[in-house]
Amino acid sequence: MTAATAPTALSIDKTQRIRNLFEPAGIAIIGASQAPQKWGFRFMHNLTNGGYKGELYGVNPGLKEVLGRPVFPSISELPDCVELAYIVVPPPAVPKALQQCADRGIKTVIIITAGFGELDDAETRQAQRDITAIGRKEEMVVVGPNCAGVVSPEPMSLAGAMFSWEVPRPGGLSIVSQSGNVGGSILGWSRLHQMGVARVVSSGNEAVTTTEDFLHFYADDDRTKVIFTYIEGVPDGRLLFEALQYASQRKPVVVMKGGRNPAGVRATESHTGSLAAPMNLLRAACRQAGAILVHDLYEAAELCAALMDQPLPAGRRVAIVTQGGGWGVLAADACHDAGLDVVELPEETIAELDTFMPGWWSRGNPIDMVAGMMDPSGPTRAADIALKCPVVDSIIFLGIGFGGMRGPRAEKGTDDPDKQVEDPAKAEERKQMSRYFREREAQVIDRLVEMKTTHGKPIMTASEAVLSAYGAKPNRSIQALEERGIRVTANVVNAAKTLARLAERYEFLQGTARTGTQLA
Amino acid sequence: MTAATAPTALSIDKTQRIRNLFEPAGIAIIGASQAPQKWGFRFMHNLTNGGYKGELYGVNPGLKEVLGRPVFPSISELPDCVELAYIVVPPPAVPKALQQCADRGIKTVIIITAGFGELDDAETRQAQRDITAIGRKEEMVVVGPNCAGVVSPEPMSLAGAMFSWEVPRPGGLSIVSQSGNVGGSILGWSRLHQMGVARVVSSGNEAVTTTEDFLHFYADDDRTKVIFTYIEGVPDGRLLFEALQYASQRKPVVVMKGGRNPAGVRATESHTGSLAAPMNLLRAACRQAGAILVHDLYEAAELCAALMDQPLPAGRRVAIVTQGGGWGVLAADACHDAGLDVVELPEETIAELDTFMPGWWSRGNPIDMVAGMMDPSGPTRAADIALKCPVVDSIIFLGIGFGGMRGPRAEKGTDDPDKQVEDPAKAEERKQMSRYFREREAQVIDRLVEMKTTHGKPIMTASEAVLSAYGAKPNRSIQALEERGIRVTANVVNAAKTLARLAERYEFLQGTARTGTQLA
Repeated sequence: MTAATAPTALSIDKTQRIRNLFEPAGIAIIGASQAPQKWGFRFMHNLTNGGYKGELYGVNPGLKEVLGRPVFPSISELPDCVELAYIVVPPPAVPKALQQCADRGIKTVIIITAGFGELDDAETRQAQRDITAIGRKEEMVVVGPNCAGVVSPEPMSLAGAMFSWEVPRPGGLSIVSQSGNVGGSILGWSRLHQMGVARVVSSGNEAVTTTEDFLHFYADDDRTKVIFTYIEGVPDGRLLFEALQYASQRKPVVVMKGGRNPAGVRATESHTGSLAAPMNLLRAACRQAGAILVHDLYEAAELCAALMDQPLPAGRRVAIVTQGGGWGVLAADACHDAGLDVVELPEETIAELDTFMPGWWSRGNPIDMVAGMMDPSGPTRAADIALKCPVVDSIIFLGIGFGGMRGPRAEKGTDDPDKQVEDPAKAEERKQMSRYFREREAQVIDRLVEMKTTHGKPIMTASEAVLSAYGAKPNRSIQALEERGIRVTANVVNAAKTLARLAERYEFLQGTARTGTQLA
Repeated sequence: MTAATAPTALSIDKTQRIRNLFEPAGIAIIGASQAPQKWGFRFMHNLTNGGYKGELYGVNPGLKEVLGRPVFPSISELPDCVELAYIVVPPPAVPKALQQCADRGIKTVIIITAGFGELDDAETRQAQRDITAIGRKEEMVVVGPNCAGVVSPEPMSLAGAMFSWEVPRPGGLSIVSQSGNVGGSILGWSRLHQMGVARVVSSGNEAVTTTEDFLHFYADDDRTKVIFTYIEGVPDGRLLFEALQYASQRKPVVVMKGGRNPAGVRATESHTGSLAAPMNLLRAACRQAGAILVHDLYEAAELCAALMDQPLPAGRRVAIVTQGGGWGVLAADACHDAGLDVVELPEETIAELDTFMPGWWSRGNPIDMVAGMMDPSGPTRAADIALKCPVVDSIIFLGIGFGGMRGPRAEKGTDDPDKQVEDPAKAEERKQMSRYFREREAQVIDRLVEMKTTHGKPIMTASEAVLSAYGAKPNRSIQALEERGIRVTANVVNAAKTLARLAERYEFLQGTARTGTQLA
């Protein structure tokens, strides 16, 4: 542990050893196995099927090969190219294996095996202290124990462990999570929402290498654009604060804390064996460091995606363009709750809208298109006028996604419970209508994407159609929007919160952050 | 307006006239048209394509038929079977058409046409007062003006207006919404989440028949099991309170209020032309009447579904059964925040879990299955033990839905951006793995459904896989769970809030509601 280095960059050695987690020339699985239910098999399998481009070996005295990959009887016999070892042997054998890795010159190790500091047991806690001692003495990077591995789609196509062998779409989000399944949930969300991923680390008990180390690494990592961290235990509040500050000055950092209240704290104690930090201290640390604290996994994922592909708004003034009055009302309520200003539009903006809106439009914000529904160009024209208005920092655009839906359809020969016999004439008419709405919506999407670039202001959308977005045949509209950098949340509450947090980030960078503006 | 009748049932006449909205022997579209972009065509089209089982006619002096349905030159010539008229003529012609309906004996009318009380204009506001006067004098049921119609899948298969012509799955949810698109959003959610619908009314400006009338009607309607209402304006707080009380004593009522804060209030004024009720009064009214106030459309929909298909928990004590430690921590945090008690499990429950859990399990609540992942029977066995525990009122079950996912796949001849060439051997292996997980999960689902019945306690689940649930090929697991009455929310925060609100309902019915327990 190199506490003194916290506010500055990591050492060159440590940086390289962390990089070896993501770009190792060779990997060894210590405890390779042929039994499909064992981690020693699953890692061999997942790395092979995930398309890992380096060398892959096993270590097991009783085997010669697994899935066609050579297996060596001991760590000392591994080839020189091995830069990363996964340890999956039973708990008592772990410290010795770790030392053998160091002796072989493998200074980057992931310990998947659980049963250490998280148990209420003197012997296993001592074993974890042994791991810490070896790791520090040998200046190793050690992930875990009690972790789920790492994922990094590029450059090695390194899909990890528990997180299945599907390689996520490459992109800018990096994750360090003290929980494997929380990290996995964000990863699962990323696959469903076109969010690209750079590096993912499930850091487990953090016996040696900590959340703080990864925050530092990501802060200076070219592939990382946005950082997400899920934290349960905080052994040293000052170190965490310094790491959050170091990273937040360079990139947006989204923080989720598990164990925020008595029930959650009790749960963390048996999970990662960590003592939870007092929540008020963490909240103050995040605010001062410029990190964005979020309590809901779903909101956190939506925010990470928006931070990656949206420009920051230069303030909290929002215009709502809606194709339904009630949606506009709910959006206005949600914006106000989130600390956004549903700004009064200047007379010249109203006048410009007057040139094509029907005589009875509401002449205010929300800009309610009601009667314009039949003209596809109306809503995007209104959005364009709102975006160019100097008192508007961002817009929420409502009434999209429905043209891209491919709901349950009659399908022959399937077990689809919604299958039904449909009159062929009606089916044809339905298809024509669907095509009409789809093509109309495709035009709206093209315009929104253009406008995001032209005006350099964020555009958020919200649609319950997002729930129909993925499946074998995804909702084309939602997919197109998300691939092209317009975010779609399931409800206006989340759209407003996301915009407010983008504004928080802007205010932090400008040095104009208001005390107490954080939503969480 | 019949203020005196509020706390008691509706009159027989009024009940019958409201029922005619949903079960009319015949419908006339006043202002029928052959132009596809006009409401006068769309209603003819939607009712025809939605499978409406009664007689359908148009009224338009210039036409003989629309879509094969007879069109009459005047309202007075309509056949006797017409029990419901949709008025879609321009604003100035509406009051006269309404009077002609009354004269012809059609006492149930839906006025779709907008441009009345919602405009800041003396003439149109007077026109709305004329509508009110005619409706009261003739003792009519009038929905609107400025509304989107009604939907009722049974017994007439009456799919309505704006809400597309898709007939929702029949079921127990009835809606009265002052916003057509908010009602439509709930309806859209219902299609994606296997939530059955009884009656939907978009009540618009409520010139004659009000939210209160529909609350009374639904309270005594056999088809209605749960009521959702979206309210913007409250002209008479006492009437609303009495209606909420009357209905809540009979059925759960979920209330959403648009215009909760200054930004939202400004938006409602131009939407339905209503003056928003002070939020603190509405909150107090809901609490005292036993109605459940929710601020988020998505939470409201999830709650309605849970109220329909889950038993009520006899208290706030929850057990969490999780296949991931971090998920368990977040669920515990969320439960505490929602006012639930993550209860300490009694020694005998721990002992029973000890019989099959690995030696190092956490021996607490959350019940973390980590090491049991490989054994599919473990999580459901733990759930069964938790459900039978006398201090547990409900459970949250985490780690489900992934076996049913059918993510983007390589598809020949499609424009799917995820298409890729896959090694046939790997594809076969992937299919086998998918089948294995799917079949395993199907067993878990069967057991959960059984247990819900056996123990009579609610089971909530949460999974980001819910986002992949719908599409041409839905997630089989999520669909199976929701069809069989186990609710899946996208995150644990919503699962906890839903359970807390089910407990609120239980406490209200028991007369043990604690002051201030409402989440919203």
